[in-house]
Amino acid sequence: MAFDEYQKRDFKVVGSRPARPDGIDKVTGRALYGADLTAPGMLVGRILRSPHAHARIVRIDTSKAAALPGVKAVVTSADFGLPDDMGLRDTQDNCLARDKVLYDGHAVAAVAATSAQAAKAALAAIEVDYEVLPHVTDVDAAMQPDAPVVLEGRVQETVPAGHTANVTNYCEFGHGDLEAGFAKADKIISRSFRTAATHQGYIEPHACLASMGPDGRGELWVCTQGQYLVRELCAGILEMDESQLKVTPSEIGGGFGGKTTVFIEPVALALSRKAGRPVKLVMSREEVFRASGPTVHTSTDVKIGMTRDGRITAAEATLRYSGGCYPNSTCEMGAQAAFAPYDLDAVRTYGLNALTNRPKEISYRAPGAPTAIYAVESVVDELCQELGLDPLDVRLKNAASKGTKSSYGVTFEDIGLRATLEAAKAHPHYTAPLGPNQGRGLSCGFWFNFGGNTSVTLSVNTDGTVNVTEGNPDIGGSRASISMIAAEELGIPYEHVRTIVADTTSIGFSDTTDGSRVTFTVGLATIKAARDAIKKMCSRAAKIWGIDPEAVEWVDGAAVPAGPNAGKFPPMTLAEIAAVSFQTGGPIAGHHEANADGAGVSFGVHLCDIEVDPETGATKVLRYTVFQDAGKAIHPAYVEGQMQGGAAQGIGWALNEEYIYGEDGRLQNPGFLDYRIPVASDLPKIDTVILEVPNPGHPYGVRGVGETSIVPPLAAISNAVSRAADVRLTELPMSPPRILSALMAKG
Amino acid sequence: MAFDEYQKRDFKVVGSRPARPDGIDKVTGRALYGADLTAPGMLVGRILRSPHAHARIVRIDTSKAAALPGVKAVVTSADFGLPDDMGLRDTQDNCLARDKVLYDGHAVAAVAATSAQAAKAALAAIEVDYEVLPHVTDVDAAMQPDAPVVLEGRVQETVPAGHTANVTNYCEFGHGDLEAGFAKADKIISRSFRTAATHQGYIEPHACLASMGPDGRGELWVCTQGQYLVRELCAGILEMDESQLKVTPSEIGGGFGGKTTVFIEPVALALSRKAGRPVKLVMSREEVFRASGPTVHTSTDVKIGMTRDGRITAAEATLRYSGGCYPNSTCEMGAQAAFAPYDLDAVRTYGLNALTNRPKEISYRAPGAPTAIYAVESVVDELCQELGLDPLDVRLKNAASKGTKSSYGVTFEDIGLRATLEAAKAHPHYTAPLGPNQGRGLSCGFWFNFGGNTSVTLSVNTDGTVNVTEGNPDIGGSRASISMIAAEELGIPYEHVRTIVADTTSIGFSDTTDGSRVTFTVGLATIKAARDAIKKMCSRAAKIWGIDPEAVEWVDGAAVPAGPNAGKFPPMTLAEIAAVSFQTGGPIAGHHEANADGAGVSFGVHLCDIEVDPETGATKVLRYTVFQDAGKAIHPAYVEGQMQGGAAQGIGWALNEEYIYGEDGRLQNPGFLDYRIPVASDLPKIDTVILEVPNPGHPYGVRGVGETSIVPPLAAISNAVSRAADVRLTELPMSPPRILSALMAKG
Repeated sequence: MAFDEYQKRDFKVVGSRPARPDGIDKVTGRALYGADLTAPGMLVGRILRSPHAHARIVRIDTSKAAALPGVKAVVTSADFGLPDDMGLRDTQDNCLARDKVLYDGHAVAAVAATSAQAAKAALAAIEVDYEVLPHVTDVDAAMQPDAPVVLEGRVQETVPAGHTANVTNYCEFGHGDLEAGFAKADKIISRSFRTAATHQGYIEPHACLASMGPDGRGELWVCTQGQYLVRELCAGILEMDESQLKVTPSEIGGGFGGKTTVFIEPVALALSRKAGRPVKLVMSREEVFRASGPTVHTSTDVKIGMTRDGRITAAEATLRYSGGCYPNSTCEMGAQAAFAPYDLDAVRTYGLNALTNRPKEISYRAPGAPTAIYAVESVVDELCQELGLDPLDVRLKNAASKGTKSSYGVTFEDIGLRATLEAAKAHPHYTAPLGPNQGRGLSCGFWFNFGGNTSVTLSVNTDGTVNVTEGNPDIGGSRASISMIAAEELGIPYEHVRTIVADTTSIGFSDTTDGSRVTFTVGLATIKAARDAIKKMCSRAAKIWGIDPEAVEWVDGAAVPAGPNAGKFPPMTLAEIAAVSFQTGGPIAGHHEANADGAGVSFGVHLCDIEVDPETGATKVLRYTVFQDAGKAIHPAYVEGQMQGGAAQGIGWALNEEYIYGEDGRLQNPGFLDYRIPVASDLPKIDTVILEVPNPGHPYGVRGVGETSIVPPLAAISNAVSRAADVRLTELPMSPPRILSALMAKG
Repeated sequence: MAFDEYQKRDFKVVGSRPARPDGIDKVTGRALYGADLTAPGMLVGRILRSPHAHARIVRIDTSKAAALPGVKAVVTSADFGLPDDMGLRDTQDNCLARDKVLYDGHAVAAVAATSAQAAKAALAAIEVDYEVLPHVTDVDAAMQPDAPVVLEGRVQETVPAGHTANVTNYCEFGHGDLEAGFAKADKIISRSFRTAATHQGYIEPHACLASMGPDGRGELWVCTQGQYLVRELCAGILEMDESQLKVTPSEIGGGFGGKTTVFIEPVALALSRKAGRPVKLVMSREEVFRASGPTVHTSTDVKIGMTRDGRITAAEATLRYSGGCYPNSTCEMGAQAAFAPYDLDAVRTYGLNALTNRPKEISYRAPGAPTAIYAVESVVDELCQELGLDPLDVRLKNAASKGTKSSYGVTFEDIGLRATLEAAKAHPHYTAPLGPNQGRGLSCGFWFNFGGNTSVTLSVNTDGTVNVTEGNPDIGGSRASISMIAAEELGIPYEHVRTIVADTTSIGFSDTTDGSRVTFTVGLATIKAARDAIKKMCSRAAKIWGIDPEAVEWVDGAAVPAGPNAGKFPPMTLAEIAAVSFQTGGPIAGHHEANADGAGVSFGVHLCDIEVDPETGATKVLRYTVFQDAGKAIHPAYVEGQMQGGAAQGIGWALNEEYIYGEDGRLQNPGFLDYRIPVASDLPKIDTVILEVPNPGHPYGVRGVGETSIVPPLAAISNAVSRAADVRLTELPMSPPRILSALMAKG
């Protein structure tokens, strides 16, 4: 069926809101997370971490620790090889430091013992001599000529001359004549912005259970967003064949991008290999903060010119990211995303990454985009204020749409930005009255959405039920949406389908659950696997009827004789075909493997009202509405949940969350008491408006939805605060002391 | 490639003897068997069993038990539904008795508690009032007119009139004019034989861990030969959709057919459903003996006529089986197998099943055949003795071969009986001298070998290694043989392939591991899945080269341009194609699902020397040689192991093993102290000779090998004992008292 036909069809399952299949397991405690598995003879793993931000490891003596009772293995970086691939080597060195520790909390050794007490004693008995080195933890400081060099020799060829050795990555995007553009502007604003590093704040710390046999084969049970990536990285670090490592993903208590690499997994495997017994390693919350992957911190300069009727004539941004102690390319996504919502004649972005003595950044929901859009949308808002223009009208005037050549070079197909802007404009929220000390902010948001490699198998059971086997951990409801898609395609009830996330040996490769790719890509593969199964079921029916398979159609969950045979035989339902499948050729399954593209970019607009207490600088989010183009929303409740969740996380990022490093380079707030994420009482009910502008790259029109929603809140809230306080804020988080100081500076 | 080409080819991997992939796990204790898994909050399950062989359950009061501290669930048959399918209902009633208990050890109730102590106390607190009924535990007694009726109304339509209500199943096979045949004979011998029920004697008792959620979805970890069968039976009994029950097979500590149904699994699921917590149920060895599935016990009449030059003129057998308390069709396989080694003009077999108050029989390696062949081959041997003929010459003269219409109606294709007989005749064992009180026996054996439904997925990892995913628990080395077949077909080293037995949600349906089907059927599906993957890899190479996929061949693990493109591009190996697969279309996998036939029957000849101590009746197996047609032996060491294992089990069956029921209908020897299986010191080194007569139904010529080897030992040993003791033995086991009493009767 062609795309247009799909768009016109009445969906029977897609678009409904069945109960989530993992809900009861999760609320009753039956779901098994990373730390919930045990194995006979299992040991307790613990990791020794650096107290220094930057130091040379002069000596590690583990002999006393190894000799303690109950201690079965001690490992250091000496237990790993030296991979040629520098990316893999960085990942490995991040798991166990080699030569130097690069941040407070960097792992230097690990033990496995028969009890937590014995493991703790063993950590205390490991002797490490450090030669402390000067450190740098700030992105701007790291770019100063006299900055300590975090890692030597890691500057990529693309970096222009004149930077310090800490600037490892560089990129540039844009088109048009900037100078001419700025010349046409009636108003030009240039501003600099800074954002703090934040953490994904997933509920479940990293946890795994590793078991390596003396034959070199391993099994790993792990909380991850990508079991195949874990397999690849661990097999690389432990120098194993991928086929010899079975990685099973547990239920996952949040990831948001933060579980898309390895931290403890290769260590657990190395401990198990040495001890000859299974080893469980679970991070504490403090370890999660100090030594997993928070997001980047940034320093951004934006310059935008605008005519007095609101047309942007030129736009330029320099985006400085620090992704911690290893080279990092998040700056590329930020530089691409910064001006994506706009149709511009002259635009240029420059992205840089500078090494700092901080843990290696890992993706956090739309990595790179929120801080880039924050800076751009702040300046656009200030221009609107300065020129007395309606900020929605200005966005509509400059909005990217189908055919726009984006600031990063891609020409957009059907996109939903205009629809979200128009929905926002028409919404009562936009014109609701505001009281004193209250401000309304808005921002656009954008995310690319990924496609990628996916393997799906759809098995038809003889009782007429169906299992879908896929390889992507479910972080946002994909088991529900994939079952719905399978049910829709097959024409059977949702309840007859169960979707399972399988281990690495049970189904072929799938890319990690990230980039808002799963409902799009796995859904697409499920549609194709279902069609493969349908083709086979039509053949079976044809065999039973003794007619040509081409003369059979699939209608409403049944094979139906068509063409010259129409009406000659009663339809055979899926259940009827399944029941006799062993007599007609054997089990029936559909399969699909592909590297999909066409995920379809997505846009959103967030609108929020904030009240600022001028006495204390405290803020209150009064009202919040998310408008987002989801393409076709498979399960609208999950889509709404994604919109609300992204907004909530963005609110935390904007107002309170930050990594605070002391002069000594140590993290001062590694816990939820001092690192303040929003709680329920901090938030209003977040309203959502789903727009459905179909993605032409998907037969149902699905787009990714999970990440776009975290992009607008930073600017939306900053704009609301700036308007409420009547002073332009340029640094995140806008914690009460920072707002108060801005108010005081204004006088 | 056509079959003949395969036969001619030089195998690179097939036929070699790589180390077994599960070996180290098993000897180091790392392998996880049925009882090795734990779950948070897990309860201990225990089952209350009947002390009576036959009784009506008047009342069960579980209220006191349920009220005890730590008791979380008590279940009885009232917790199950009432399936329409009578086979399913029998299986269910065997798991928890409804209305009546039918044998000593029949389960009547089960509990789940927080500790073994609490569970034991709960069992003691369950009140059951029985009305004891008359019982019958012997197959011949059950056919007497006054025998107690085990189950009413279960007589199948095929059973001729005149039998008691206990005779539930009947079958008849054969062809030709018996009367005329017997008239041509120079010698006719009629004899009756009896064999005792034996147990498979697997090392690992039945064990499972069940977890049912309040949403009706369940997970089961279980030691089984068939996770799909367990799923079907449990889903049927618990009235669930198959898609909602995930069954994961553990490593298996022996099965031999005994783990091809459910005993405790539905009970564990019902307990978990009621308790809302995971429940582990593990049988004790006593429970295994009393209430799992032993083999049939039999009573068989055989009449064979022979000319003085050794030609069999007519043959007839009546085979009475008791498969315990529920209807059972094992008699059919026995009646089909009885005369399968012979090319006969006149043959007739009659198979009957009679109910007795014993546990329901479950398959034990070549079910039905050993006892049938035992009776036939005993009479053939006695005819040879009486007529002064060489027993191998007589077998050769009458041997079935290609084109023979078998006694059960099938016309044989290429078979290896003659080859095994000739190999036995040429072997030094056959002519080695014997001492006093020593005898040499031989027997032919036969098994059908099954094909059946199979699903296989073969995934090509980007590092060039391969995972094969299949659904058949490995009881005889199939993970090795399947990896070898995949490596052979793909042209890569064995070490690069890992084969995994997946759970029911991770790959489509496969029939149970039984009938010697796995290496044949899963191997065949693996070849086809590999060819599917090869086709895709050739397409990827063609895409890279920009040529037509049809112009690419797969040679020695690499895609090679062929035809007009030959030599234009260097070959691309599997690893090279895999490494770039994401750039050429995505992950690469091959799949195959089919219901295969053509497994190819197999034949064997066993030769043994026994010494009988005339003072005590004790026996000693002096020498034992197995000759068997394996088709192509994929991994010869495993094939030899199967031959040795079958012989060892057959020796136990022949000489010592037996279920002993008392007058009270209770099993008197439910433990390895009183049920005597052969230990190492009872056995000589069992020599093996593999014949390789290719099976035309398989591209490599593979036949099943696992079961044929248990068929000949009963008669081979009986013939050896009979010749050594100079008295014809007709009852198994030939324990010392029984041999002594035969010697004393002879005088």
